[in-house]
Amino acid sequence: MNDRFLRALRREPVDRTPVWLMRQAGRYLPEYRATRAQAGDFLTLCKTPELACEVTLQPLERFELDAAILFSDILTVPDAMGLGLHFVEGEGPAFHRPVRTEADIARLPLPDPESELRYVLDAVRLIKRALAGRVPLIGFAGSPWTLATYMIEGRGATDFLHAKRLRFEAPELLQRLLARLAEAVARYLAAQARAGADALMVFDTWGGVLDAAGYRAYALPALRALAEHVSRLAPGVPLVVFGKGTGAHLAELAELPVAALGVDWTTSLAQARAAVRDRVALQGNLDPAALFAAPEAIRAQVAAVLADYGHGPGHVFNLGHGVLPQTPPEHVAALVDAVRALSPAYHRG
Amino acid sequence: MNDRFLRALRREPVDRTPVWLMRQAGRYLPEYRATRAQAGDFLTLCKTPELACEVTLQPLERFELDAAILFSDILTVPDAMGLGLHFVEGEGPAFHRPVRTEADIARLPLPDPESELRYVLDAVRLIKRALAGRVPLIGFAGSPWTLATYMIEGRGATDFLHAKRLRFEAPELLQRLLARLAEAVARYLAAQARAGADALMVFDTWGGVLDAAGYRAYALPALRALAEHVSRLAPGVPLVVFGKGTGAHLAELAELPVAALGVDWTTSLAQARAAVRDRVALQGNLDPAALFAAPEAIRAQVAAVLADYGHGPGHVFNLGHGVLPQTPPEHVAALVDAVRALSPAYHRG
Repeated sequence: MNDRFLRALRREPVDRTPVWLMRQAGRYLPEYRATRAQAGDFLTLCKTPELACEVTLQPLERFELDAAILFSDILTVPDAMGLGLHFVEGEGPAFHRPVRTEADIARLPLPDPESELRYVLDAVRLIKRALAGRVPLIGFAGSPWTLATYMIEGRGATDFLHAKRLRFEAPELLQRLLARLAEAVARYLAAQARAGADALMVFDTWGGVLDAAGYRAYALPALRALAEHVSRLAPGVPLVVFGKGTGAHLAELAELPVAALGVDWTTSLAQARAAVRDRVALQGNLDPAALFAAPEAIRAQVAAVLADYGHGPGHVFNLGHGVLPQTPPEHVAALVDAVRALSPAYHRG
Repeated sequence: MNDRFLRALRREPVDRTPVWLMRQAGRYLPEYRATRAQAGDFLTLCKTPELACEVTLQPLERFELDAAILFSDILTVPDAMGLGLHFVEGEGPAFHRPVRTEADIARLPLPDPESELRYVLDAVRLIKRALAGRVPLIGFAGSPWTLATYMIEGRGATDFLHAKRLRFEAPELLQRLLARLAEAVARYLAAQARAGADALMVFDTWGGVLDAAGYRAYALPALRALAEHVSRLAPGVPLVVFGKGTGAHLAELAELPVAALGVDWTTSLAQARAAVRDRVALQGNLDPAALFAAPEAIRAQVAAVLADYGHGPGHVFNLGHGVLPQTPPEHVAALVDAVRALSPAYHRG
């Protein structure tokens, strides 16, 4: 197996910087749009293991990527908790039964991944077989706080007023919800590891909307609980936590039992590296919007990201967030080629 | 005049922490909605000095605030440059003639505030007279980068693909645009000071969407040019720069010739204070969403913000962004009362 990605997560020497991209399987690829059209809708695509496997592998056929990531959605866990996930046209995900009260939280079941999220584990098993050891497979889930925002708001939000009302007015309820989610997500991630995932990722998409004190008091302890559960349930499987807009908290995040931290494009990798003091690997962080520039400009930006991290092991090249839907696929190729061409210089001697 | 706000900006001792709120005159106030209905639309409200004066003063009638801020829009300068500002229902501001090419940038005029933005200066003069020395008046403008995003995109954007294409593909054009805006905005702010503004604010609403290197290479130098122009054109008038999502750059921002920096709610004031090493005052930073919690919870959050900044001068209490439209006015009263009641303890001995 090409183990460049797993070696980088362990901060071991590699010949060049491994590269994969958040949302590398997605709408920017015409073959993805074809499979999605075949599925009819996004949730059916997620819930049909053969189709999820198909789209997971699509970017690997085009680009020389060093990892595959399971195609799924971060909201599978709340869906399995019975909240009624659905997608509102032009608006995004929504839940039929949002979680707002103490009673709502108390009645949330702890889903058994092997039965209630079996479609995900079946997809992991299929993908693992189809990959045949070519590259590692990354499993993933949403962070407790990010899942909580969707569950509390019930639909797309910009100011997160319901979730923040809980944070400011009844933080003990928020903590209860986050603790439950940390446990449910840890079981889910461990099940993905048992089904074959070689590494696990947690997406904290909305960590950056919290006030600094709230992040430290609620979101971060839930991530700690999650990471501790995972390291107990799936020992030795590297965990990567990506937070958007949480660059100010990298030093504290580096103290969790995680292998790596994802960094968005608003934090310099050099500053991030100084903040985490080489305790963890770093993954990132080209602005996804850079992929709309011409290939020569993309190459220059890849060079800048590599130089920002600097020499030595522990860097996984990625974007600072997911590939945007209108991205030209040939620009992704330019990025991958540039990482392959320019990164060996950072791993010599 | 109540000079608590101006003293705090100079980091001089005060009896209690001054307080004002970004967007304190706005849609959350029924009296604002009445005046706005009378004006017919938002731009007419901005462009009619008597009405702009009226809404500027409204929050001061309700709350014991330590400063007034001119009611206007950040896009008045690009409007005066001839781009054709208008508002699209449910979408926000847009320009009929966006700026994309070298020729577009070359033909941008430098507006003369005394003639082309006279309606703003007339509003400043009216407000100043109506305030009769009660509290200081803050004038304001958008930052060069933030104005550039609107001018390049032409309408509301989430990924800023056009503006970032310039940043990644033709940064020398972006620099030219930013330099022009720095000059235009500086003249505009200086004219507001001549018309009676006691302090000046720059809103860098979209600074936080730039990659860290891009912020340092383009947005920050434009802010420096702006601050230097202002300190030459309006010597002695304190300048405050507020950036959203730019907490990582506070140390560098503190080296500009500015009196204070605004801090959003994702950066702790204690960390911000350490970063700026008491070179400038700080303004902020309660999460505007906290105003949806019950008054007792608001009071606790005000206490937390005051404690986060700590003892001594140089703090102006504010939100970490503007008052949200659905905010209950009586919750704003709870905030102001809490600052008045709790802050004297931080200014003793």
